[in-house]
Amino acid sequence: MREHFADRLAAALTRAGSPVCVGLDPVIDRIAPALGLSAEEAAGSAEVAADAIWHFNQRIVEAVQPYCAVVKPQSAFYEQWGPAGVEALRRTIEFCREAGLICLLDAKRNDIASTAGAYALAYLGDGPLSTDALTVNPYLGRDGIEPFLSEARKRGKGIFALVKTSNPSSVEIQNQILQDGTLVYEHVGDLVAQWGADGIGERGYSDVGAVVGATFPRELAALRERMPSTWFLIPGYGSQGGTAQDVVAAFDERGLGAVVNSSRGIIYAWDSGSPATDFAGAAAQAAREMRDSIVAAIEARHQ
Amino acid sequence: MREHFADRLAAALTRAGSPVCVGLDPVIDRIAPALGLSAEEAAGSAEVAADAIWHFNQRIVEAVQPYCAVVKPQSAFYEQWGPAGVEALRRTIEFCREAGLICLLDAKRNDIASTAGAYALAYLGDGPLSTDALTVNPYLGRDGIEPFLSEARKRGKGIFALVKTSNPSSVEIQNQILQDGTLVYEHVGDLVAQWGADGIGERGYSDVGAVVGATFPRELAALRERMPSTWFLIPGYGSQGGTAQDVVAAFDERGLGAVVNSSRGIIYAWDSGSPATDFAGAAAQAAREMRDSIVAAIEARHQ
Repeated sequence: MREHFADRLAAALTRAGSPVCVGLDPVIDRIAPALGLSAEEAAGSAEVAADAIWHFNQRIVEAVQPYCAVVKPQSAFYEQWGPAGVEALRRTIEFCREAGLICLLDAKRNDIASTAGAYALAYLGDGPLSTDALTVNPYLGRDGIEPFLSEARKRGKGIFALVKTSNPSSVEIQNQILQDGTLVYEHVGDLVAQWGADGIGERGYSDVGAVVGATFPRELAALRERMPSTWFLIPGYGSQGGTAQDVVAAFDERGLGAVVNSSRGIIYAWDSGSPATDFAGAAAQAAREMRDSIVAAIEARHQ
Repeated sequence: MREHFADRLAAALTRAGSPVCVGLDPVIDRIAPALGLSAEEAAGSAEVAADAIWHFNQRIVEAVQPYCAVVKPQSAFYEQWGPAGVEALRRTIEFCREAGLICLLDAKRNDIASTAGAYALAYLGDGPLSTDALTVNPYLGRDGIEPFLSEARKRGKGIFALVKTSNPSSVEIQNQILQDGTLVYEHVGDLVAQWGADGIGERGYSDVGAVVGATFPRELAALRERMPSTWFLIPGYGSQGGTAQDVVAAFDERGLGAVVNSSRGIIYAWDSGSPATDFAGAAAQAAREMRDSIVAAIEARHQ
């Protein structure tokens, strides 16, 4: 029998002693100098760009692996380069999983019925882009979740549904107030908890996680109370302004329940002073510092 | 200067005398018999499946082109086959656009900032997967729309944001009632109209369209009144139960303002009795009948 996704995630974070997730968001202009290329050279063709991305990712993953158990490729930066970019994504996912990392694909997919089923097969099945978990958008309701969940549960995988996103205008829909006083994102959080209620693993967490931004610490704390069995995937740390203090409320009394992502703050860490050729070393240092800051903030809370 | 997307769409539908959009949703088990293959043969490898999809699509597009101006590949069915499937999508988009059809890519993408910008470059820029318009999910608010819109407007392209989807559980979020009595989907409709307000073309329509399902005709009529300048992309016709009578309220007094999609009802029309080898003829007939039904319903309303 396959291990439950939520148990596997808990075990991996415990083993690594780190809730850090490294976001693999390769922007070609920014990775070019690290590879000794001009931006024009690196973007010379889709194939050249895709190859640059693949080489950059390998070096980053090898460098940060001591400090994290989870990585999150952002599909957009691969799709941008068409079929060649998707091949770089395929190789990246395969490389990360073979290295023993848990790979969350951030693709925010959403659809219904057989279409959602096709996305589920694409990313949670056993096809070329198969990964450990996928982010999804909940706007379509349960019909847009079940096909993903059904495929995920066959294979010990998971999904993370957007609840409260890290961007300022997330309030336009997510913070609207419903008739009974509930905010839309709270209502969505309740739905996400329901969708996951029949998929709770041995450690008490469900295989339906929630994406909750680090940039709204008050909402993060309230959602933690509201969704005690839900893994949170937390974007917005670092470059978007979230700090260790902002995310500490996402962790439960076991120091688990949350994965905190940083992309630009880690993979482009060399931009703040290191030589570009040491991009991997700078990424490793940034990942270690992020791990240390969050772990210290969690421990301080328990003292 | 590039023609405005909404004007281009209006001109194309007027010229074709048809509001029909043919959805290119190739499910390998269902297209295999049309190509004289067993399902096992057609799904033998990602490359074989992608090749089958590409051959099937060419025949379908050639057959239905006399009866429609718009096609809508559904990205999931291509992504399912990894890089090879995305290559089949690239060829399909290119083939449709070279044939003079308007190609809407149904991918329901959504993200913020540079990530949304990467998706926008992927599908609305000038890269390998560049198409005429893209469906997007509005849950993240304006931050999740502007990067798409900015790229679209540079190039005379458009976006269609989900407002009220065709599936039963769309009510779980979309039909929640806000404090002032507005439903969530009405609020989203108002936002979509606002996002498009500074992108109105010469014919009075905006370059930010709305996806509104055929399966909720009352909501469709109410949204038409609420969003008079917005193009509607209407899924749910045919296989999902929507009829010509259900969608007629989406058309304005000029008989414009809506594109009605059918996927399975057209591309698998042979399934209801024709020999599989005549799949293209059956698709053409189904597209013609759909056009005739909707045009007749629009005309009947004006008498």
